[in-house]
Amino acid sequence: MSSIFGKKLKISVFGESHANAIGVNIDGLPAGIEINEEELLEFMQRRRGGQNKFSTKRAEKDIPEILSGFKNGKTTAAPLCAIIRNEDTRSSDYSLFSDIPRPSHADYTAFIKWNGKSDFCGGGHFSGRLTAPICIAGGIAKQILAKNNIFIGAHLKSVGKAEDKEFPMLPENELFVEIAKKDFPVICDEAGKKMKEEILKVRQDGDSIGGIIECVAIGVPAGIGDPMFDGVENRIAQAVFGIPAVKGIEFGEGFLISQMRGSQANDEFYIDENGEIKTKTNHSGGIQGGITNSMPIKFNVAIKPTPSIAKVQESVSISEKRAKTLEIKGRHDPCIAQRAVPVVEAAAACVLLDYMIEYGSI
Amino acid sequence: MSSIFGKKLKISVFGESHANAIGVNIDGLPAGIEINEEELLEFMQRRRGGQNKFSTKRAEKDIPEILSGFKNGKTTAAPLCAIIRNEDTRSSDYSLFSDIPRPSHADYTAFIKWNGKSDFCGGGHFSGRLTAPICIAGGIAKQILAKNNIFIGAHLKSVGKAEDKEFPMLPENELFVEIAKKDFPVICDEAGKKMKEEILKVRQDGDSIGGIIECVAIGVPAGIGDPMFDGVENRIAQAVFGIPAVKGIEFGEGFLISQMRGSQANDEFYIDENGEIKTKTNHSGGIQGGITNSMPIKFNVAIKPTPSIAKVQESVSISEKRAKTLEIKGRHDPCIAQRAVPVVEAAAACVLLDYMIEYGSI
Amino acid sequence: MSSIFGKKLKISVFGESHANAIGVNIDGLPAGIEINEEELLEFMQRRRGGQNKFSTKRAEKDIPEILSGFKNGKTTAAPLCAIIRNEDTRSSDYSLFSDIPRPSHADYTAFIKWNGKSDFCGGGHFSGRLTAPICIAGGIAKQILAKNNIFIGAHLKSVGKAEDKEFPMLPENELFVEIAKKDFPVICDEAGKKMKEEILKVRQDGDSIGGIIECVAIGVPAGIGDPMFDGVENRIAQAVFGIPAVKGIEFGEGFLISQMRGSQANDEFYIDENGEIKTKTNHSGGIQGGITNSMPIKFNVAIKPTPSIAKVQESVSISEKRAKTLEIKGRHDPCIAQRAVPVVEAAAACVLLDYMIEYGSI
Amino acid sequence: MSSIFGKKLKISVFGESHANAIGVNIDGLPAGIEINEEELLEFMQRRRGGQNKFSTKRAEKDIPEILSGFKNGKTTAAPLCAIIRNEDTRSSDYSLFSDIPRPSHADYTAFIKWNGKSDFCGGGHFSGRLTAPICIAGGIAKQILAKNNIFIGAHLKSVGKAEDKEFPMLPENELFVEIAKKDFPVICDEAGKKMKEEILKVRQDGDSIGGIIECVAIGVPAGIGDPMFDGVENRIAQAVFGIPAVKGIEFGEGFLISQMRGSQANDEFYIDENGEIKTKTNHSGGIQGGITNSMPIKFNVAIKPTPSIAKVQESVSISEKRAKTLEIKGRHDPCIAQRAVPVVEAAAACVLLDYMIEYGSI
Repeated sequence: MSSIFGKKLKISVFGESHANAIGVNIDGLPAGIEINEEELLEFMQRRRGGQNKFSTKRAEKDIPEILSGFKNGKTTAAPLCAIIRNEDTRSSDYSLFSDIPRPSHADYTAFIKWNGKSDFCGGGHFSGRLTAPICIAGGIAKQILAKNNIFIGAHLKSVGKAEDKEFPMLPENELFVEIAKKDFPVICDEAGKKMKEEILKVRQDGDSIGGIIECVAIGVPAGIGDPMFDGVENRIAQAVFGIPAVKGIEFGEGFLISQMRGSQANDEFYIDENGEIKTKTNHSGGIQGGITNSMPIKFNVAIKPTPSIAKVQESVSISEKRAKTLEIKGRHDPCIAQRAVPVVEAAAACVLLDYMIEYGSI
Repeated sequence: MSSIFGKKLKISVFGESHANAIGVNIDGLPAGIEINEEELLEFMQRRRGGQNKFSTKRAEKDIPEILSGFKNGKTTAAPLCAIIRNEDTRSSDYSLFSDIPRPSHADYTAFIKWNGKSDFCGGGHFSGRLTAPICIAGGIAKQILAKNNIFIGAHLKSVGKAEDKEFPMLPENELFVEIAKKDFPVICDEAGKKMKEEILKVRQDGDSIGGIIECVAIGVPAGIGDPMFDGVENRIAQAVFGIPAVKGIEFGEGFLISQMRGSQANDEFYIDENGEIKTKTNHSGGIQGGITNSMPIKFNVAIKPTPSIAKVQESVSISEKRAKTLEIKGRHDPCIAQRAVPVVEAAAACVLLDYMIEYGSI
Repeated sequence: MSSIFGKKLKISVFGESHANAIGVNIDGLPAGIEINEEELLEFMQRRRGGQNKFSTKRAEKDIPEILSGFKNGKTTAAPLCAIIRNEDTRSSDYSLFSDIPRPSHADYTAFIKWNGKSDFCGGGHFSGRLTAPICIAGGIAKQILAKNNIFIGAHLKSVGKAEDKEFPMLPENELFVEIAKKDFPVICDEAGKKMKEEILKVRQDGDSIGGIIECVAIGVPAGIGDPMFDGVENRIAQAVFGIPAVKGIEFGEGFLISQMRGSQANDEFYIDENGEIKTKTNHSGGIQGGITNSMPIKFNVAIKPTPSIAKVQESVSISEKRAKTLEIKGRHDPCIAQRAVPVVEAAAACVLLDYMIEYGSI
Repeated sequence: MSSIFGKKLKISVFGESHANAIGVNIDGLPAGIEINEEELLEFMQRRRGGQNKFSTKRAEKDIPEILSGFKNGKTTAAPLCAIIRNEDTRSSDYSLFSDIPRPSHADYTAFIKWNGKSDFCGGGHFSGRLTAPICIAGGIAKQILAKNNIFIGAHLKSVGKAEDKEFPMLPENELFVEIAKKDFPVICDEAGKKMKEEILKVRQDGDSIGGIIECVAIGVPAGIGDPMFDGVENRIAQAVFGIPAVKGIEFGEGFLISQMRGSQANDEFYIDENGEIKTKTNHSGGIQGGITNSMPIKFNVAIKPTPSIAKVQESVSISEKRAKTLEIKGRHDPCIAQRAVPVVEAAAACVLLDYMIEYGSI
């Protein structure tokens, strides 16, 4: 297993849904940077979402304790490790799934990988709960980036077929802040209302639904990244596929660009009022040849429907080698896309801060 | 710059479009494995494509010379380095673009990154020509995987709005072989004909067009991969975004899964006639929690339209800080998606062979 | 900063001498392996040493709490994070040294590296206390290796000029166990007595003294490791120089081999009573071309005298840019070599377990 | 196998003694830096040494051809790959050793590692010839460092018991240049004469002898490196153990420091005539806590006697599982330590350039 990513800034995630704690070790932070713990907590809260009928009721407070690398409100340059104690570590609800795997969960693949020796009840290290440590790292990264005028924002672009507006080509941080304050992370509340209706409907049906998240980073200077295998797209993709339930990522126009002509898709240059070279459009999502061009970095992420649904499903008993039906008890998020919004921001923030540190810009 | 990827099998790509040579160093191959050089050459030829009106005419023969790690037709376990001499290393055609960057090329981002100190004429290390070394590595990887009953195939899923059939849920290697022999890599030749018409049309307009590639790997055992940041999706994505012009990747149903309900998207289990656990559908693309489940690994890749088009475009002169129009002379591929098909296979093969070596399976 | 090492088994050390906690995250352990926590604690105790007059009196109990990756006495395959709470986190004693650096400590180099922004009081992340997390990881690694008949032992080879016997060419685990039980980790207690006298003498003088540790690993199969930069010597050296105060490492005969002739230094082969190929001598320390040959892996490590001494020393005030004398108050270990003995074992164990996991042998 | 090292500057060595070519790929060089090819060749010649009776007669000219990453005399920022064609690729002389392994060579360990599937005749990838690519990378690194006032020099400190003078505490580049010009790399030619006598004597006896190399780097600024596992000592050690025949490395006083008291070993600070903080002594070899302090980085490397000797030795036949005597025909270097001198400089140069690039200083 390797729950670590990053080059100069190494993010190691640990913990399981029913272990004593979950947490993250952040190795490579600069020294002397102020971190506002309250602001971090506010960011963490966005992931919890769950205080309403669109999410589960597991009532963990998710307050991180910083164990190291932090003194008098500032980073010390030593690895910053932070943990969240799991309050509810009973795992009885999940023991069933190690023999009768839940469809489209990792129960079966984990069983095969570890020859049944690993009992990942409740999802273990695969659990969506592990996105909390990603948010600790990302929340800290976002604060440091913000001090350097780099801002990251995301919103729910769609749930099922209900769609929000897209970000404008040149969004400002105010918009990100505004969305972050909302109960439901959309630009247009009308669209949000439709999404919520969609979620309630599938919930009533004992079903679930997926969504798409649009994420943008503004203020990243030109010249960050590398061609080939170490470019900004490569690294953001590597991090974002670390979020459970992600099934796709596209930059700029993404898959739609395959239907465009070069004359439509190319981003022509101009010189703006400050004498800076910009592009008139941003179909490329701010990246050419793996390297930033100072335009907003823009990407979409596809989130699959929560695989835990109330409906009866067909599975197998691994030990008995025969078919079994499966009914998953308990409350589950009918949609996790809205809770994944800050997690996507967090993953992007970690990658971008890593680059900025690597380039000596922070 | 870091044109290296892989864990146990490290692929290092070097060379520039107008350097003495391009090539690849493959570190971590097992010992004593036969490599058929003729078969490798045939694979390489698929990338050249260009012997017809759908591609450029640059007449490099692209015959790799293996310098090391290979003796009496077998790998020696030492790093295998192979090069292709560039025959035509004149670069005069390209000198213009270091000052007047081509829209949606890396001319501008490279200029900023290296403060104008790097003269990447002809695309330099960013050139599509660098996909040839990826194909050397991938062609070798494909041969080794095939000896272990793992086969990888890809086809053009679409060009513009012209669409090929999709791979069946359980494709066989025969289909891959059949496509590989075709001039134009599609399943359904009728669809191919429409794509070619589309390409000819944009070519007549001095324009270009993008496409989507569907790639599948069969025979990969269950249990390969890791949760979080080192899963099969993460690593394939990292490699595939190393191919120039890629703007998106999606696994299984990909972005469409965001519109599905859990009850539709979940892959229910059953026990097949051989007593093996399989899933009835493969919406997940063979991967759960970053780990393979023995179903085909399936992903789509979005390729943007060739940014080099004959049409006049607006750019700027970096030195003069003012607007300039740009006309790109010479012949360019009106569509590169068909040539990228074997490159996508190659990237996937390198990642999967890396895993198989890591798991001690090869 | 990068306090992480390892390939498949990644050991991340965090914490500072006066942070809330110190700890380690171990990513890459296999699933289902029993870890005996009491045995781990016993191993940890060997590092504390300090319950006598040869060491300091800082009375931390150093009991690790395992936060994750461990359930019902077994590893779960998820990252295993363990922490030790720092009981005494006052740092007033050390504030002086950020301006008047202690000779041969990292006070000055840390000041320069972080522009004075990092206040590493008490040594911070540089502190010898950070060897406790290394011992957590190493103690766990030793237990797993032992289940696979690989045993690691070390002893104090010398303190100043007082020398212990060397390990026999083919030591057995019984000897390692015997030394581990001793108050003072030597083979020959007579030699130990002389070392202790030496230590007491320098202590009375307000001074300190260095030593050499000999470490051996038995049971490692032949064929582990790689030529060039990823060999067993390279990786053990990388890990061992991570222990504060280490200034040299040598394998087999080490520096003395430079005075030997080939006919003396070469390890000739023979076939032993079990039909296995062995060498008659082990001047190479069990490694040829970076790869193990099944003979014991043997290396020596040079430990410098504790830089904190009671004697007045000359330093400078960084802020005032002028000479200053420095008197370091408080009790300090007059010799740290004896406490470093289990730490060297721990570092070697982590490297060897990493290899065994990489080779699929564990 | 992983013949790659470095973080931002990745050095990949490839080739075998009897392959078509040996070479190196250098990934991560900055753009626009002049490299003097003649100077590089001169540096390479120091490694060949062998044009006299102290070395072998294999008459390879060792002229590197730069394939990529280099244009109009300057680096382009793309990976720089350079190769040396092997002129004599017959391997018949060596076929014997794959069954009857040479003592203290890697014949046996390579056989076990690759189950006899890899025929590393002539040492293959283990051959001393692979130090030529290290010298290509190191020669380039030395040139780039020199432009930044960082100079690296080394000399033979001893052969057997014959000893050269040590470097002064603050050596200047003139001394390095002077030694580099000599036929035999020593400070004091009298000492060199004794070493040569020692070498001739063992040669007459059909035997070989080892030596120690002292290496120093001057001009490295303070603040480079990291505590724990990524410090300057860790990384230099990792690289230097990549040179065949190295059995030990020590920094500053090294193993002797174990016999010193703290009051002797500590490097006290003072302010020099330029107002800079320096240490009065340099027992630490320029590194504290893994981080440079601006004093010369100083280390010694132990080189074992050439394992290939004319004397009859005892070995075994692996296939017949019985004892066999072995007589190694042909001419071999009676001492390789003098030829390893520039290789040690090269390895150190690669590590230091890597750091300087990482720190944005170059």
